[in-house]
Amino acid sequence: MERLEIFGVPGLPEVRPGDDLARLIADNAARSCGLRAGDVVVVAQKVVSKAEGRLRDLRTVVPGEEALRYAERIRQDPRFIQVVLEESLRVVRDERVLITETRHGFVCANAGVDHSNVPGEEVVCLLPEDCDRSAAELRRDLTRLTGVELAVIVADTFGRPWRTGIANVALGVAGLAPLLDYRGRPDDFGLELRATVVAVADELAGAAELVMGKTARVPVAVIRGWRAEAPPATGRELVRPRELDLFR
Amino acid sequence: MERLEIFGVPGLPEVRPGDDLARLIADNAARSCGLRAGDVVVVAQKVVSKAEGRLRDLRTVVPGEEALRYAERIRQDPRFIQVVLEESLRVVRDERVLITETRHGFVCANAGVDHSNVPGEEVVCLLPEDCDRSAAELRRDLTRLTGVELAVIVADTFGRPWRTGIANVALGVAGLAPLLDYRGRPDDFGLELRATVVAVADELAGAAELVMGKTARVPVAVIRGWRAEAPPATGRELVRPRELDLFR
Repeated sequence: MERLEIFGVPGLPEVRPGDDLARLIADNAARSCGLRAGDVVVVAQKVVSKAEGRLRDLRTVVPGEEALRYAERIRQDPRFIQVVLEESLRVVRDERVLITETRHGFVCANAGVDHSNVPGEEVVCLLPEDCDRSAAELRRDLTRLTGVELAVIVADTFGRPWRTGIANVALGVAGLAPLLDYRGRPDDFGLELRATVVAVADELAGAAELVMGKTARVPVAVIRGWRAEAPPATGRELVRPRELDLFR
Repeated sequence: MERLEIFGVPGLPEVRPGDDLARLIADNAARSCGLRAGDVVVVAQKVVSKAEGRLRDLRTVVPGEEALRYAERIRQDPRFIQVVLEESLRVVRDERVLITETRHGFVCANAGVDHSNVPGEEVVCLLPEDCDRSAAELRRDLTRLTGVELAVIVADTFGRPWRTGIANVALGVAGLAPLLDYRGRPDDFGLELRATVVAVADELAGAAELVMGKTARVPVAVIRGWRAEAPPATGRELVRPRELDLFR
């Protein structure tokens, strides 16, 4: 019988720029579920960004003309919009909220820039500069600290068209296959499966969110029992190339 | 420490129209993880549809003019397209694949109509007529059979704009809150969380998919340890109202 376990890792302090996040995760996991070979460690983007110093104080931001225009249109702080635009390649929608394509290729509200759970009313948190690099570095450090091989997902909650609410998705991936490709395999009746590539890293991120929550300060979850069936790759694989995207 | 367990329920036979799906689930769960109070039972849409007889034999389908036109444009079997159109309110995109809004309000490829894992090369499987009703009936029957209160999600894998691959989402929901609404609650620094409604039913569906797979004939998963924090509602809550949707 297939079986997965998902543990929330509590106990992390408020993470500050320069903190050794891998050590905080390893120490706190050791006090709860531990870390074992094959575990998938899902880390909320926010603590990764904080450790990497990806914070901006809005009091130091001067909005440009474009930011002022959008800010008036959607009634937002123009300094906040300025930061969003600096993180974006382009604006995809500008009704009620700015939905942009980030420099990573993610399409999400406000380029992932966010006020919540950040100390200081005027400080906002940005996505990591390179989420795959963040995941790879955490994985390297966690492996060094624990002596076991594991996988890391850096995750954030994004909104989706057509469906209500946000859901956690994998932004950075290290040590696991983000996609499981069933194409070419036979289905249960021997017919070839045609369009079935499953975004398992996003499903792992979503599963982790269930034990993380938004306010309980559990920014890390451990998933135990996941067996990778394909070679590892990065979160970049989860970004639909623009030319194959009907909604960009 | 928060902890969830997810079990795949193997052993179900090929499900046929009229089969007592609740009994098949209860019997096979009893042989593996069992069913306990508070469990979330996630059931693949396909076995629900099969039990409900939601199958169409393409040999009995006569494509209309609209179907013939789309079929030529995207090089598909016009009889298949005819079935897709009959399940749809309208076509959202018609490049490479028909993306439509179903009569339920879901936006997905081919209105969820699907060839795979269906016996008979010319037979296709449709989504349940009312996925929430299917979930509610399964829940009622499972509760009657097992004597414990549980929740049911009827789930299917949908594609997403912007991101590669498909992911499992909750189409029908009974006995749990599909959305967790953090709006108005304070974040860890006392600031009010503003736009945070988490689609936990979709995350539960995605988590379940990880132990279900596409070819291993595990159409049911049990999630243990999920604590509902809000009153139950239906999967309809997960459908973004058209007037609030920037991408429809």
